Amino acid sequence: MAAFPFDIQATEGAARTGVLRTARGDIRTPAFMPVGTAGTVKALTMDQVRATGADIILGNTVHLMLRPGAERVKRLGGLHRFGGWDRPILTDSGGFQVMSLSKLTKITEEAATFASPIDGSRHVLSPERSVEIQADLLGSDIVMQLDECIAWPASEERAAAALRLSARWGARCKAAFGERETQALFGIQQGSTFEVLRRESSARLIETGYDGYAIGGLAVGEGHQAMCEVLDYAPGLLPADRPRYLMGVGKPVDLVEAVARGVDMFDCVLPTRAGRHGQAWTWAGPINLKSARFAEDETPLDADIACPASNAYTKAYLHHLVKSGEILAQVMLSWHNLAFYQTLMARMRSAITEGRFASFRAEFHAGLRPAAGQ
Amino acid sequence: MAAFPFDIQATEGAARTGVLRTARGDIRTPAFMPVGTAGTVKALTMDQVRATGADIILGNTVHLMLRPGAERVKRLGGLHRFGGWDRPILTDSGGFQVMSLSKLTKITEEAATFASPIDGSRHVLSPERSVEIQADLLGSDIVMQLDECIAWPASEERAAAALRLSARWGARCKAAFGERETQALFGIQQGSTFEVLRRESSARLIETGYDGYAIGGLAVGEGHQAMCEVLDYAPGLLPADRPRYLMGVGKPVDLVEAVARGVDMFDCVLPTRAGRHGQAWTWAGPINLKSARFAEDETPLDADIACPASNAYTKAYLHHLVKSGEILAQVMLSWHNLAFYQTLMARMRSAITEGRFASFRAEFHAGLRPAAGQ
Repeated sequence: MAAFPFDIQATEGAARTGVLRTARGDIRTPAFMPVGTAGTVKALTMDQVRATGADIILGNTVHLMLRPGAERVKRLGGLHRFGGWDRPILTDSGGFQVMSLSKLTKITEEAATFASPIDGSRHVLSPERSVEIQADLLGSDIVMQLDECIAWPASEERAAAALRLSARWGARCKAAFGERETQALFGIQQGSTFEVLRRESSARLIETGYDGYAIGGLAVGEGHQAMCEVLDYAPGLLPADRPRYLMGVGKPVDLVEAVARGVDMFDCVLPTRAGRHGQAWTWAGPINLKSARFAEDETPLDADIACPASNAYTKAYLHHLVKSGEILAQVMLSWHNLAFYQTLMARMRSAITEGRFASFRAEFHAGLRPAAGQ
Repeated sequence: MAAFPFDIQATEGAARTGVLRTARGDIRTPAFMPVGTAGTVKALTMDQVRATGADIILGNTVHLMLRPGAERVKRLGGLHRFGGWDRPILTDSGGFQVMSLSKLTKITEEAATFASPIDGSRHVLSPERSVEIQADLLGSDIVMQLDECIAWPASEERAAAALRLSARWGARCKAAFGERETQALFGIQQGSTFEVLRRESSARLIETGYDGYAIGGLAVGEGHQAMCEVLDYAPGLLPADRPRYLMGVGKPVDLVEAVARGVDMFDCVLPTRAGRHGQAWTWAGPINLKSARFAEDETPLDADIACPASNAYTKAYLHHLVKSGEILAQVMLSWHNLAFYQTLMARMRSAITEGRFASFRAEFHAGLRPAAGQ
């Protein structure tokens, strides 16, 4: 396996900061990956995404296999060239989308069968096909194993069956993936909120052996507190020397608490989705620019964030754009939110490096603007 | 009056190229002004607009007076500061919008009364109020007189009445505008497709005296041929030493033919509106990126246009964005179309400078890529 070098440069408690070195560039951890569902981080150009400080973005296997089609992306030179992003891309395997996109999904030992939300056509996604799409057709740098993602709450029996199927699918993914110089394969821990199942899942993942390990099946409705309780033990069940990726998470407070518990990588649609709906993140929490209280507010969203959407326009102007239904409102707020998230990650990295993550965390919870570090 | 210096640097037949020097920067003519209706050139950041080569943008009095309100824009520092554009802005007077926005418009000698399309509230726009909004509240660099814009076709009697009211309103605008150091006032020629009326209108405009002269009441349904017939004589009725601005025009072919007839300035929503609907301009005419024929087209829209949307993405990718309903499709195609329009203007300017506008025009009509010039 590729086993991109992962240099952990500093730790504080369970929190750690480092660099994952891929063939397409370094990923500074803890890292937040903007979601580029269908070959575009919604509403933004790749230059704008890069300018926020993102080292890596995420692409969606299921969305891209349905449109424009994975073979078509391959013929067009792969996902990096297609979308104009030459740095690392992680692709999810499709497990989560298969669950969330369609009520007509059928899971067998062999594969998941699901209906396209675009035209209702039936599609089969097996572990082998998921790897082929991600690694060979899209040309992803970090390939995720196919897993069975279940809704919350789930019975222990249901969660156990899903993690065991996921473990068997993971082994098939690894066999299909084989040995690759410039691509990595990550396994996915499942087990819902049951510690005994998370332990079993982790043991099976380690037995198979992956380049990195994800924590799946969280942020599916259990809430921040229940998620934190799982994160009290789940990251520690995974190899300390490899990156740990918490899938689909989350709000800034989720990221801070997960980093405190040893997580290295995140992805979430929240910053861009919230931005498209008029919401902007601040250190004091989210605000909705549609509110009349911003109609004559001449302050920017955040003068200290190095993004034009954050520092160069007044809230009054952004309020006007949101009220007027202007596309630029969606662009500006998506852009600001991604810049906010990347600033949050950068501040966490420097806090861990400088041994002051505990005080950073306390300041964050107090709604204070964290120090930029040295 | 301000009378920004207008240096005509070269002519070829009726066509001319030069520079209009305003307090906020030079405008190279012939100039195309992107339309920033409500304080935003739709879907684009001002940095993106500027990067296409635009020297000046247009703002809409009626849209801005209704939302966010002209007094509010004033309190927020004026339109330049509000929208983040520090170069020249021309504002239309509202005459065209009052006609097109509302069926409940009432025109009297005193003023136009119309209903807001946002909430149905009634508003009064007099010549004096239009100047106050544009010059004092929005802080426009080029203020347009209020005119009565009529639909096409119109009877000669109706057109005559409208141009005479417009002439009287223009004189009131000039009185309200007074003497200003850093702002200009433009009059608007009316008269529909009647040469005798265009002559009368021009004589009245010249009698009042303006810093520049617009040709109004065209591109309202009469078609390219009828418009060209008016343009065969209309620009020549206006002072040769002042800029001539053809309002609301148009397609690239309209621009080329109007420049050939002595027009210096244009504005139109077409490039951005067409872009939002999947249409991209090329030297061979418009193409719709939704068409399946672009699904695997690996060429960019135009490798020679200095805009990422034109040269850095394949038509296959843009096709995918359009098909997927992605916001980035609207951004990219609006951006490309504005870059195409600015490139067209730049090529016309260099062709006139180099005395080869006649051959440029012939090549353009043949659907050929025009030479970049020296």
